[in-house]
Amino acid sequence: MKRNLSMLMDYYELTMANGYFNEGLKDNWVVFDLFYRKNPDNGGFVIAAGLQQAIEYLLNIKFNDEDIAFLREKRIFSEEFLNYLANFKFSGNVYAVEEGTIVYPDIPLMTIEAPLVEAQIIETMLLLTINHQSLIATKANRIVRAAKGRSVMEFGARRAQSYDGAILGSRACYIGGVDSTATLIADQLFGVKAVGTMAHSWVQYFDNEYQAFLTYARQYPTSCTLLVDTYDVLTSGIPNAIKVHNEYLKPKGEKLLGIRLDSGDLAYLSKKGRKMLDEAGLIDTKIVVSNSLDEYTIQSLLEQGAKIDSFGVGERMITSKSEPVFGGVYKIVAIKENDKYIPKIKISENIEKITNPCFKKAYRVYNEKGIGLFDFLALHDEKIDISTTKFIDEKMPWKKIETNPQWTVKELQVKIIENGKLIYDLPTLKEIRNKVIENLKTVSEEEKRFKNPHHHYVDLTLALYAKKCELLYSEEH
Amino acid sequence: MKRNLSMLMDYYELTMANGYFNEGLKDNWVVFDLFYRKNPDNGGFVIAAGLQQAIEYLLNIKFNDEDIAFLREKRIFSEEFLNYLANFKFSGNVYAVEEGTIVYPDIPLMTIEAPLVEAQIIETMLLLTINHQSLIATKANRIVRAAKGRSVMEFGARRAQSYDGAILGSRACYIGGVDSTATLIADQLFGVKAVGTMAHSWVQYFDNEYQAFLTYARQYPTSCTLLVDTYDVLTSGIPNAIKVHNEYLKPKGEKLLGIRLDSGDLAYLSKKGRKMLDEAGLIDTKIVVSNSLDEYTIQSLLEQGAKIDSFGVGERMITSKSEPVFGGVYKIVAIKENDKYIPKIKISENIEKITNPCFKKAYRVYNEKGIGLFDFLALHDEKIDISTTKFIDEKMPWKKIETNPQWTVKELQVKIIENGKLIYDLPTLKEIRNKVIENLKTVSEEEKRFKNPHHHYVDLTLALYAKKCELLYSEEH
Repeated sequence: MKRNLSMLMDYYELTMANGYFNEGLKDNWVVFDLFYRKNPDNGGFVIAAGLQQAIEYLLNIKFNDEDIAFLREKRIFSEEFLNYLANFKFSGNVYAVEEGTIVYPDIPLMTIEAPLVEAQIIETMLLLTINHQSLIATKANRIVRAAKGRSVMEFGARRAQSYDGAILGSRACYIGGVDSTATLIADQLFGVKAVGTMAHSWVQYFDNEYQAFLTYARQYPTSCTLLVDTYDVLTSGIPNAIKVHNEYLKPKGEKLLGIRLDSGDLAYLSKKGRKMLDEAGLIDTKIVVSNSLDEYTIQSLLEQGAKIDSFGVGERMITSKSEPVFGGVYKIVAIKENDKYIPKIKISENIEKITNPCFKKAYRVYNEKGIGLFDFLALHDEKIDISTTKFIDEKMPWKKIETNPQWTVKELQVKIIENGKLIYDLPTLKEIRNKVIENLKTVSEEEKRFKNPHHHYVDLTLALYAKKCELLYSEEH
Repeated sequence: MKRNLSMLMDYYELTMANGYFNEGLKDNWVVFDLFYRKNPDNGGFVIAAGLQQAIEYLLNIKFNDEDIAFLREKRIFSEEFLNYLANFKFSGNVYAVEEGTIVYPDIPLMTIEAPLVEAQIIETMLLLTINHQSLIATKANRIVRAAKGRSVMEFGARRAQSYDGAILGSRACYIGGVDSTATLIADQLFGVKAVGTMAHSWVQYFDNEYQAFLTYARQYPTSCTLLVDTYDVLTSGIPNAIKVHNEYLKPKGEKLLGIRLDSGDLAYLSKKGRKMLDEAGLIDTKIVVSNSLDEYTIQSLLEQGAKIDSFGVGERMITSKSEPVFGGVYKIVAIKENDKYIPKIKISENIEKITNPCFKKAYRVYNEKGIGLFDFLALHDEKIDISTTKFIDEKMPWKKIETNPQWTVKELQVKIIENGKLIYDLPTLKEIRNKVIENLKTVSEEEKRFKNPHHHYVDLTLALYAKKCELLYSEEH
């Protein structure tokens, strides 16, 4: 599956890069932050995901002869620049929040410190990679939390936004907490367990539903889940499923593993279905449902007392249908001159588009019970002491933020790549998924609410805030 | 870019396929239709897209040794089946609506006539491919129509749903009518012209905005479009752009090609900006805008008299943000026995999920002026005569549909693959884009409205309707 995606970038990355190169600026080091401004679905937080693919990209960027020839034909790039690209290697430093970490707006998910041209041309791929997987992991986690411990399976491939949307989307769903996937290749590539039984076409192919079920049971006696809604769930599907159990599976010492409902009133049908199964002695037979589910429909089904053991969730999870765009951005925050970092800011007519300048570090503050209280951004070389460091809420800079010496402070980013070399042990996908589970234990219940979750503050240290104000008021542009 | 995506499928395709194979049914021919039920965004129609990638997939499906070894470890597939998969080739027939054709709900975008196992296991990839590109082409076309002849550029890569979402999404946007793309690889792969100038980081990198603009003009004197909203559009950005024109470009005999606005009130700023440029004698300098645009914001900007020459549209087009899921489905409609097609139907508790049975053909009826009036579905071997064939509106089967002998009837599907061999000349992407333009001329203005467009009827012939009723009332399941 290794593809060369180096040419997947906005064209302007190269027009700028060529300009920087020709101006003799390519080796000037700069610092960029990748961050986002708003939690999707008005949620309380985001789950950072996609770092592994971002790292693989950075370690493998390469422009081959065809790429260079293609660019040459544009007749705007200097030969020196094309020659430089032909030998391109990323040689910078990468700091990032680990995959599976809970994050909040303004926290830099990645910080890139690299020569100008290198830092610039990786923009599109870093954003594309992190934006997509963070969006889907976050959505999947909402859906998994709504299911309150019941199993959630990812069924989205056919409605995903193209192939990688299905494949890496499935990876992100697993990070977010789904148990398994219908997408076979996600099992092959990432070890997410593939599951699946039958489509309506199986039931339709045979002369009648009973025959279809019986044939399936014969093929898969130990893993027999039957789709019961092709004709009529209560008068045909479930009676036929029970009949196949009684007449074929039971005599063989096997039992009907489950039934699946894919249409109709899932609350009503699951309750009726449960009763029919129980009365037939099939108390262990699971009820699986699917059909345009998301966190809200699952919540509603459970509130109605639906008898459901497991949810198959497709299009609304794999596309994050309710909010299909994750607005991560990549902004220059400093340039390095003679080993000093000169801060850079972007001002804007839209206040929320003003950036936090400076090479920074991000921290989280936890209370004595290990619950995350707030995050803050600081200058990268600032000494942090929870008792003495002053924190500023930008919207209310006069607000005095009282701290407690018993609170603990944890840095959020880890150094991943140093001078182009990977210095970080990539976790397994299972470890990333577990990190989400561990991280969630440090998040207050109020932040986990779907409706009006508690706003997690991301403050600035006084030192950083002072720098920002200085730049905002400066006349120099 | 050729990847083996054969393992990108729902796992149940293979559990069913193994079952069919082991039951000795693999060579029984069947017919599946790929169709959708509802136009996205409550629009009047959809633009069919993705066929080329679907064809490439069908012609190249191949399970390699690693795939087979991976499947063997699942311990549910018979060795005979795995051996069959190792030598798999698609050998069926494919009928499809050509890419770029305007289509409506219930029209089969593809019809597959193939041996059972083959027809089944291609389901996921066909849906994924057609669903994604049709969705994005349709959305892009709405945006292009809203721009009323002004240029639309695709700027979505960084917010797309992963890599193929960006790459094939850009292809689909071009089919839908955009002129160009920021996504370099779409130029390399598909010949969609790449465009791009600078990011805010370029402006921020230099000591001041004037220096940034001057440097850019020096690098690109003949294609100089400047991003003017890094600090303040009216007091800094545009004055600096004009200054660079006057002090650098003009003396060289060049001129400022354009300015770009990426934030703030685009209606207000574009009008003010136009005035400033005109007063500086820069009447040919274009104003390009971007920032979360879609068909509605573009419509609103133009209604406000915004002075905009070209729109850069990103996240809301590349993800079809307002409706990011295209609900194409793939349903068995017939099985072939002794050269006869036995119709199959799927009944459902959700009425709209009941399928149209039978191996069918789809037609469009045009009036004397070449405007498409309605579509209809017929039995595949039914003789059609506009004067005598009876058409049924399923929702009002008693309605008498009067026809006119001067109307013309055109079949919508083309035979693409015959016994596994491509028998169709694949059009170029430009030809596909032109087909959209030509097709749109046959669509009434009422169907093109964004709000409450005219409903284009898709009727059934009386013969097909009779078959459907027969199956619906039959007791056999």
